[in-house]
Amino acid sequence: MGYYPEKVEKLIEKLVKFPGIGPRSAERIVHHILREDEDVVNSLAENLISVKRDVHLCKKCFNLSEGDLCNICRDERRENILCIVEEIKDLILIEKAGFKGIYHVLGGTISPLDKITPEKLTIPQLIERLKKEALTEVIIATNPTTEGQNTAEYISGILKELGIKHSRLRCGLPVGSEIEYVGTPTLKKALEDRKVL
Amino acid sequence: MGYYPEKVEKLIEKLVKFPGIGPRSAERIVHHILREDEDVVNSLAENLISVKRDVHLCKKCFNLSEGDLCNICRDERRENILCIVEEIKDLILIEKAGFKGIYHVLGGTISPLDKITPEKLTIPQLIERLKKEALTEVIIATNPTTEGQNTAEYISGILKELGIKHSRLRCGLPVGSEIEYVGTPTLKKALEDRKVL
Repeated sequence: MGYYPEKVEKLIEKLVKFPGIGPRSAERIVHHILREDEDVVNSLAENLISVKRDVHLCKKCFNLSEGDLCNICRDERRENILCIVEEIKDLILIEKAGFKGIYHVLGGTISPLDKITPEKLTIPQLIERLKKEALTEVIIATNPTTEGQNTAEYISGILKELGIKHSRLRCGLPVGSEIEYVGTPTLKKALEDRKVL
Repeated sequence: MGYYPEKVEKLIEKLVKFPGIGPRSAERIVHHILREDEDVVNSLAENLISVKRDVHLCKKCFNLSEGDLCNICRDERRENILCIVEEIKDLILIEKAGFKGIYHVLGGTISPLDKITPEKLTIPQLIERLKKEALTEVIIATNPTTEGQNTAEYISGILKELGIKHSRLRCGLPVGSEIEYVGTPTLKKALEDRKVL
């Protein structure tokens, strides 16, 4: 407190509110900024403002987008397989894994204790899409956590009613892992679901 | 590449250039920004610009400062003990350790191989200060590395010529450490310099 000039202290205060930035890395970032060219810092500041101002959620799938529809929803070469994810960061990871279909971002998981009902998520919009779009398959890619599993089961119920073919991401040993360090629930799944060769 | 809207990709590109921010944390920071209020993001951007514009180096000790002289150099209650450090971050750490004197920030260490001569650092300005200011003691607080040690010896030579009392930070076992995990050079120093009880 008070070791730096006031403006620097304020900047550090703001930076530590970001995920993964502690007081030490906030200080390192400030030192880096002070060494950088003024142009670079100004352009970073403008970029921050413009991302916040111009980047919104896609009206269809709730991915990030600069227009009404995101790059993926506008891409006509995409397959009619819908992948349902909890968060945008999951969508990005599945894109990086090479998925060629389309997405629906829920914005979280159903959690009655936290008063997060299906209506608080994008599940009403999902149901609209399921009724309207001609999908060959739906992949429920929520996390293999209790909340993710409960949400998957809720959505599976809807899909069964609508008679739409659907699947869930497979659980098992992480590639490159060692059995010694994998938890018992994972090992149990890997055993139960063992792949016949 | 191309998974996010262009403005988001650009922002991530800029963020990963900062120390301690990898691609993953840059993405987490962007997601955080997108969830934050526009006011908060704008104020962060302004703060970045103003720090870069208004924070400079103190004309006397080369600490960070919003005016010509930093808060420490302007504080008349400070003792006339001068602590010489490599970088501003070292000054802050020594402040936090409770030091009540004044400082001189070298801006690095002497390194002939990297063409860093004493003139590339703030050593000429240090010599001016040593001649002018009435100091009771000088503490050389460069790091206990080869470069820090060489720089300390160079400065010690100057101080001897000027007949000024000076000292160096003591090396030994870190408080709370375990001998098992401390390196041999540290242990050797701790043994040689053992404190008689």
